Amino acid sequence: MKIGTGASPGIAFGKALVIKNEELVIEKKSIENIEDEKKRFERAVQESKAQLLNIKEKASKELDEGKSAIFDAHIMVLEDPELISSTLSKVESEGINAEYAFKEVIEQFIAIFEAMDNEYMRERVSDLKDVSGRVFRNLMGKKVIDLSVLDEEVILVAEDLTPSETVTMDKQKVLGFLTNIGGRTSHTAIMARTLEIPAVVGLKDITEVLKEGDIVAFNGETGEVVINPSEEEINHYKELKDKYDREKKELENLKGQESITLDGRKVELAGNIGTPNDIEGLLKNDAEGVGLYRTEFIYMDRDSLPTEDEQFEAYKKVLEAMSPKPVVIRTLDIGGDKEVSYLNIDKEMNPFLGYRAIRLCLEQRDIFETQLRALLRASIYGNLKIMFPMISSLEELLEAKKVLEKVKKDLDNEGIKYASNIEVGMMIEVPSAAIISDILAKHVDFFSIGTNDLIQYTTAVDRMNQKIRHLYNPFNPAVIRLIKMVIDNGHKEGIWVGMCGEMAGDKKMIPILLGLGLDEFSMSPISILPARKLIKSLSSEEMKKFADKILSMSTAEEIEKYIENYFK
Amino acid sequence: MKIGTGASPGIAFGKALVIKNEELVIEKKSIENIEDEKKRFERAVQESKAQLLNIKEKASKELDEGKSAIFDAHIMVLEDPELISSTLSKVESEGINAEYAFKEVIEQFIAIFEAMDNEYMRERVSDLKDVSGRVFRNLMGKKVIDLSVLDEEVILVAEDLTPSETVTMDKQKVLGFLTNIGGRTSHTAIMARTLEIPAVVGLKDITEVLKEGDIVAFNGETGEVVINPSEEEINHYKELKDKYDREKKELENLKGQESITLDGRKVELAGNIGTPNDIEGLLKNDAEGVGLYRTEFIYMDRDSLPTEDEQFEAYKKVLEAMSPKPVVIRTLDIGGDKEVSYLNIDKEMNPFLGYRAIRLCLEQRDIFETQLRALLRASIYGNLKIMFPMISSLEELLEAKKVLEKVKKDLDNEGIKYASNIEVGMMIEVPSAAIISDILAKHVDFFSIGTNDLIQYTTAVDRMNQKIRHLYNPFNPAVIRLIKMVIDNGHKEGIWVGMCGEMAGDKKMIPILLGLGLDEFSMSPISILPARKLIKSLSSEEMKKFADKILSMSTAEEIEKYIENYFK
Repeated sequence: MKIGTGASPGIAFGKALVIKNEELVIEKKSIENIEDEKKRFERAVQESKAQLLNIKEKASKELDEGKSAIFDAHIMVLEDPELISSTLSKVESEGINAEYAFKEVIEQFIAIFEAMDNEYMRERVSDLKDVSGRVFRNLMGKKVIDLSVLDEEVILVAEDLTPSETVTMDKQKVLGFLTNIGGRTSHTAIMARTLEIPAVVGLKDITEVLKEGDIVAFNGETGEVVINPSEEEINHYKELKDKYDREKKELENLKGQESITLDGRKVELAGNIGTPNDIEGLLKNDAEGVGLYRTEFIYMDRDSLPTEDEQFEAYKKVLEAMSPKPVVIRTLDIGGDKEVSYLNIDKEMNPFLGYRAIRLCLEQRDIFETQLRALLRASIYGNLKIMFPMISSLEELLEAKKVLEKVKKDLDNEGIKYASNIEVGMMIEVPSAAIISDILAKHVDFFSIGTNDLIQYTTAVDRMNQKIRHLYNPFNPAVIRLIKMVIDNGHKEGIWVGMCGEMAGDKKMIPILLGLGLDEFSMSPISILPARKLIKSLSSEEMKKFADKILSMSTAEEIEKYIENYFK
Repeated sequence: MKIGTGASPGIAFGKALVIKNEELVIEKKSIENIEDEKKRFERAVQESKAQLLNIKEKASKELDEGKSAIFDAHIMVLEDPELISSTLSKVESEGINAEYAFKEVIEQFIAIFEAMDNEYMRERVSDLKDVSGRVFRNLMGKKVIDLSVLDEEVILVAEDLTPSETVTMDKQKVLGFLTNIGGRTSHTAIMARTLEIPAVVGLKDITEVLKEGDIVAFNGETGEVVINPSEEEINHYKELKDKYDREKKELENLKGQESITLDGRKVELAGNIGTPNDIEGLLKNDAEGVGLYRTEFIYMDRDSLPTEDEQFEAYKKVLEAMSPKPVVIRTLDIGGDKEVSYLNIDKEMNPFLGYRAIRLCLEQRDIFETQLRALLRASIYGNLKIMFPMISSLEELLEAKKVLEKVKKDLDNEGIKYASNIEVGMMIEVPSAAIISDILAKHVDFFSIGTNDLIQYTTAVDRMNQKIRHLYNPFNPAVIRLIKMVIDNGHKEGIWVGMCGEMAGDKKMIPILLGLGLDEFSMSPISILPARKLIKSLSSEEMKKFADKILSMSTAEEIEKYIENYFK
C-alpha cells in the first residue's frame, strides 16, 4: 500500500492507465520502396489529423472557443505544405525512412523558430513538438493516448495532469486520478474536486510503480492506494464505495434546504468556479451562489487578450445561470504561478511576491478597464458582486475603485446600462490587508478571505514547495487570529465576510469559522452538501465558545488535537 | 542629471571607472612564426598568474582564509599542465593563433565539466571562465581591471558589485559606487554603508551613459548624479562635501556619550556586521554593541562547510573585540537569495518563501549543532546572545531551543566550558511570529525585528523586484502596527525588543520607533552617530504621542507627510 495526499474524496478501483512521456528512439534507415514509405508517412499525417479533428469536435462541444482553438493550431501544423513536402522529398532524395526524414525537418523548423526568440514563437515550438510527437507515434505504431476517446473505464496515473488534459478527457470513463506530484491545493486536486472525481496526489513514483493494466484501488479521502488488491481488499473497497455512495445519496436530501445552525444562524454556502462550464457542478450540488469566479482562466491558454465581448459573454452566462443568486467575480489575478505568455511579464525571482493581480491591473489600465466594462455590461443579467484581488494597502483599493468609477462614467456617456446595486469587495489574502481590515472595511461592501495565499504569506511558506510543506498549516494560531480580526473588523463596519480559500470547505475548519462568525463559505462544489450537513448539526453559540478556546492556544498541534477530540 | 536611489550617504566626485563585461571576439588566424606564438601564450599565462598572486596576497592580508582560497583555485587552473600543453600543441599542429587554440581547449574542458552535471563541477566551470577571460584579455592586450590594484582615485560604475568585488577592491582608492540595479537594501548598498563609501544604486543605465574617464559627481543621500559637471556644479558639490565632512566631524564629538532622550530614556545603538573585519567600522562609530552578526558569510564563497574551529575563531574574534558590550549572533540564515552551492539546495520557485534559515537548520542538524558548539565555546570571550532567524511558530522555536540544550549537554559531558548567562532570542521577520509574539515572548530573552523581511512578507512584495518596488513601503500602517504589537508583547513579558532591519537606522523612522518603545536599534555603523544625535534631540514622551497619532492613520502617504511636516 502507498499513501499520498487525499485530494478529492470518493473510492475508486479499476484498471490503471499510465501516461508516460517516454522518449521515442528514432533511427536512420535506408528504404528500398520509396513510394510505400511516402504513402506510410502520408497515412500517419492523415491519421493524426483525424485524431485531432475528433478531439477538437469534442472540445468545442464542451468548452469555450478559446480552448478548442489550441487544436485548430495543431491541425494547421499538419496542413503546412512545406513541412509535409520537405519530408516527402527528403525520403525520396536520401532514400531514408519517413521517421528520420520527418525528425530532421521538424528539428530544422524548431531551430528556426527558436532563433526568433520571442514568446509567440516559443509557443509555436511547443505546438510543433506536440503534433510531431503524435505523427511519430502513429508512424511507429505506438499507442496515442487521447484522453478524450477512452475505450474503457480507467484510473488515470500521471506525473501531473495539465488543465488542458483534464479539460479534454472523457470524464465518463475516468474513475479517478493518481499523480506523482501536487498537494491538496494543486490544480489537479482542485480540478478533481470540481469534476467530482476521486484523486490521490503527491504519490512521488506512482507512474513507476504501476504497470499499464494493473488494477488499483484507492481512497481519495485518506490517500490510501492499493496496487493489484487481493479479492478481500477489493471487497473492502467495494464496501467503502457503497458506504460513500450511500452517504452521497443522503446528502442529496439536503438539496433545497437552508444552511442553518441548530440555533438558527443562517450562513451562505457558495462555490468556487474557473469557467462557465463549472456552473453545472455548482447547481448539481445546490450552491447558494458563486463565492469566487476566477476570471484568469479566460486569459490563459491563448495567444492574445480576450476581447470585451468574449468576457461579457462568459460573465453573462454565469450570472444568468445563477440568477438571482449572488455571483462574486474576482478581477484578473494573473502572474504569480499563473503565467500568460502574451503579457510578456518578466521572469521573477519570487513570483508569489511579485507583479500580479491588482498590481498588474493598476499598471496595465487598458486590460483592467476592458474587464470592468465587460463585468458592468453583464451585471444586468444577474446578481453581480465585483472583487479585487491582492490588495495590500488602502491606496490600492481606492485606486481600483477609482478605475471602476471611471469605467461607469464611460458607460454612462455611451448610454450603456449596468446594474445600479453592484457590491464591491476585496480579497483578504495579503497579511497587511488583514491587519488594516478596520480601515479597509470602511471602503468596501464585503471581504472574502483567501486562505491559501494568506497562510502562505503569513507564515512565509510557498505551499507548492515540497521541502517545507509541513510548515504550511491552516491551524497556525497566527492565521486563526488574523481571520478573527478580519471578521470582527468587517462586522464592526456592517459588511459581510466570506472565505474562498480551501479552508472554507474543510470539515475540521468549518466549526471554527462558524464560531468566529463567518457569513459566507465558498468551496469546491463537491464540498457544499457535506458542509451543509455539518453546519445543520452545529450550534452557533457553542461554536463561539469552541473558537474562543482555540484562540487561547499556542500551537497548531494543540489546536488540531483539541478539534479531533471535540468531535470524536 | 540622473536620479537613482541614495544608498550610502556622502558626497563624491572624481573620475569614473566603468566596469563592463564586454564580449571578446576571438577569430581564427593562421600563424607563421609558431614559436613566437607559443611564447606569447606562455607570457599571457605568466602575466595572469602574477596578477592572481598579487590579488591573492592582498586578499589574504585583509580577509578570512575562505575567501583568498578562491584565488588559489584560479591559480591552480593556470597550473593545469593539460590545459596549457593542449593549447601549445594545438598552436603547433594547426598553425593557428593562441587565442583561438586556447578558446577551443577551454570550450572542450567546459563541455566535459558541464556533462558531469553537479554543483561542484559547475563551480569549476565558473572558475575556468573567469580565469580564461583573464588570459584572453592579457593575450589581446586588453585592460584587466583589478579592483585590488587601482592606480588612482576613482568612482566605480558597474551593473552591480558582487560581494567578492567589494571585498577585493582597494578601498583607499574608491571614492564611491554607482550601479545600474539594486535598492537601499541590496547587498551593494549595505556593503557601501559598511565601508562608509558614498553610493547611488538603481541608476538603470549608468554603465551605458558614462564613458571611462568621464568626471562624475553625486550625492549618496539624495541619489543625484551629475555627469561631467560644470565648474559651478563642481563647486556646489565641493561645498556639499565640506558641509558633509563638517557634520561628520561634529558627530565625532558624540563618541563616548550615551544614547539618551531629552527626558532621560536610554536606548542602545548597535551595529549590524557580516564578518569580524566589520568590527573596525563599528568601533570607529562607537557602536554600543553588535545587534546582528550575520554568520552566513562564513558559509559563503567556499567549497565546503566551515569547521567548528573556523567558526569558533570568527565568533571569538568578534566577542573579544566588543567585550563587555553585547554581541547578538544570528544562527545560519542561508537559502532564499543567499545560495550556498555545497549544500545542494534545490532550485525553488519562490526562494523567499522557501527552505532557508531555521527551517534548514532544524532539518540539517549536524550543521546547526556545529554552529551552536562553536558559539557556546566562544561565549566565554565576551557577552554573547544567540538569535534564531525565520521562526514562524512556537513549535520551531521550542525545537531550536531543544537543539541548543542538547549541545550544551554534549559540551558538559566533554568538560568544555561556556558562559552560563547567554541570552537566547529570535528574529521577528515572519508575520505569524509578530502576530503570536505574546506567546513567543514567554520563551525567549529578547526579540529583534527584521524589518526587511517583515515588510516583504506582510505586504507580499519582493523588495528586489523593480516592477513593484513602489509597494515596498516601511510606512505601510500594517507594518507599524505589527511593530507596536511586538514591542508591547515583549515588554508585557519583561523582555527587551530590538530591531536589526534597515528601518532601525532611518532617521524618519527612529522617532516612531522611539515612541513605540523600541529598546535597541541595530544599524549600519555609519548611521550610529547620526542616530545618537537625533535621539538626544527627542523627548520620549512626546514621541509616544507622535507614534499614537501615526497609529491612527490609514495610509503610508499620510504617515510620511505627517512626519515630514512634524520635523520641518
